[in-house]
Amino acid sequence: MRFSIVLSTQPSSFSALAYKGNLAENIAKIGKLGFDGVELAVRDPKQLDMPFLRSTLEKHRLPVPAIGTGQAYVEDRLSFTDPKKEIREHAIERIISHARIAQELNALVIIGLIRGKKHQDLSRETVETYMIEALQWCASSSPAVRFAIEPINRYETDLLNDVRSGLSFLERLGRDNVGLLLDTFHMNIEEHSLTGSIRLARQRFFHFHVADSNRWYPGAGHIDFRSVLATLDEIDYSGFVSAEILPMPDPDSAAKSTIESLRTFH
Amino acid sequence: MRFSIVLSTQPSSFSALAYKGNLAENIAKIGKLGFDGVELAVRDPKQLDMPFLRSTLEKHRLPVPAIGTGQAYVEDRLSFTDPKKEIREHAIERIISHARIAQELNALVIIGLIRGKKHQDLSRETVETYMIEALQWCASSSPAVRFAIEPINRYETDLLNDVRSGLSFLERLGRDNVGLLLDTFHMNIEEHSLTGSIRLARQRFFHFHVADSNRWYPGAGHIDFRSVLATLDEIDYSGFVSAEILPMPDPDSAAKSTIESLRTFH
Repeated sequence: MRFSIVLSTQPSSFSALAYKGNLAENIAKIGKLGFDGVELAVRDPKQLDMPFLRSTLEKHRLPVPAIGTGQAYVEDRLSFTDPKKEIREHAIERIISHARIAQELNALVIIGLIRGKKHQDLSRETVETYMIEALQWCASSSPAVRFAIEPINRYETDLLNDVRSGLSFLERLGRDNVGLLLDTFHMNIEEHSLTGSIRLARQRFFHFHVADSNRWYPGAGHIDFRSVLATLDEIDYSGFVSAEILPMPDPDSAAKSTIESLRTFH
Repeated sequence: MRFSIVLSTQPSSFSALAYKGNLAENIAKIGKLGFDGVELAVRDPKQLDMPFLRSTLEKHRLPVPAIGTGQAYVEDRLSFTDPKKEIREHAIERIISHARIAQELNALVIIGLIRGKKHQDLSRETVETYMIEALQWCASSSPAVRFAIEPINRYETDLLNDVRSGLSFLERLGRDNVGLLLDTFHMNIEEHSLTGSIRLARQRFFHFHVADSNRWYPGAGHIDFRSVLATLDEIDYSGFVSAEILPMPDPDSAAKSTIESLRTFH
């Protein structure tokens, strides 16, 4: 089982990021702690110095399992379901630019908050059509890249909160390169059973996030990570287990406690 | 162990209420299902027909363990920490009127969302001072009534999210008739350990809410209610265990499943 942790490639107000600040320094820290990879949260790929990023990753032999895109929503208010056509198009263009660097890094692209929330002036049907259209566009324009839709708890969005609705959405979409991302923090609020939902979604999820029930590092809350990781083994999950956590009590302690806990629980 | 369920005494947009609508009919239903009491969510006591309410409760021999006050915030935007002095005073007056009917019904008064959220223009120190002042005012003007502050998860307020901060706040307040209300739905997000926090708060919590991890009836999610109820017995908790849940899949099924689950788990 390979473990990674989320690193923001630029300062962000989005709080569930364990690491911010100096990119090279943080990649080195993550490698030194013994992580097997580093997930990158990228607001806008055009702000990235890709040759520098690639050489830093290669120096520390850290693959990138996934590219997070939530900052494009949080910072730039881009959304697949905005009532304004130009915002929706801008969101799709942004995700396609994420897909380009994802392909270069052999990573998948996370579809989290970028899907937006149901706008009060739009019907649920319209909003779902916008989501489908946006994902069809992304998936067909980047056929070699995988996209992972993350069910997110009810407080952060009203579109796709649990694994079951995520799976139904995938059925409607009908694209092999679009799957799910399961996140234990959201699952703790939305799923009847964490291990049951992992089994239900087997074959249809591409990526896995861990955070404890309080969104701190695994071990800080009450999620039974021994069962969760054992269930991932049971279904032969071969992707990364990636920590998207609050930087608490501080970023360095959070990263250190994460890898220690995961190695203990597995 | 005595079980109750929340009933709204008037229509509300606040969703975590198992029962709405016709008051007498719903009180009868709750009695018939075998609950030992009924918790009342009251937006404004002056809208209540108290003689009718009392006779209906007596007819079904249902005591009222607690009066919920959240609708005064959700519907009327009253808050202990509003920047406007007249709104804060209005909120205090409203809670004192809740305390009057609570005394008549031998119930306690819940301090939940009425505390508000930290307003961006105010310092945390100021907001905490407003909360202290409001509660001092309520507690001293109604010395025979008990008030229960509910730690509420981070998504609904940024003031008093967990049991530990609730206990610290009680220490600062120093009022014997103000304690905590513990709610398993919020605890599932905020506490390191549900049973650990129940033990930590022993003697200092007056009321207990149950809802499962997804806010449905107990048994619909993954909270270990056998351990939770056993821990309440272990610390000799003598208050009510009251269900504040979403009316899902429908209000009647939710109430029936609640009492069946609680009797099974205890």
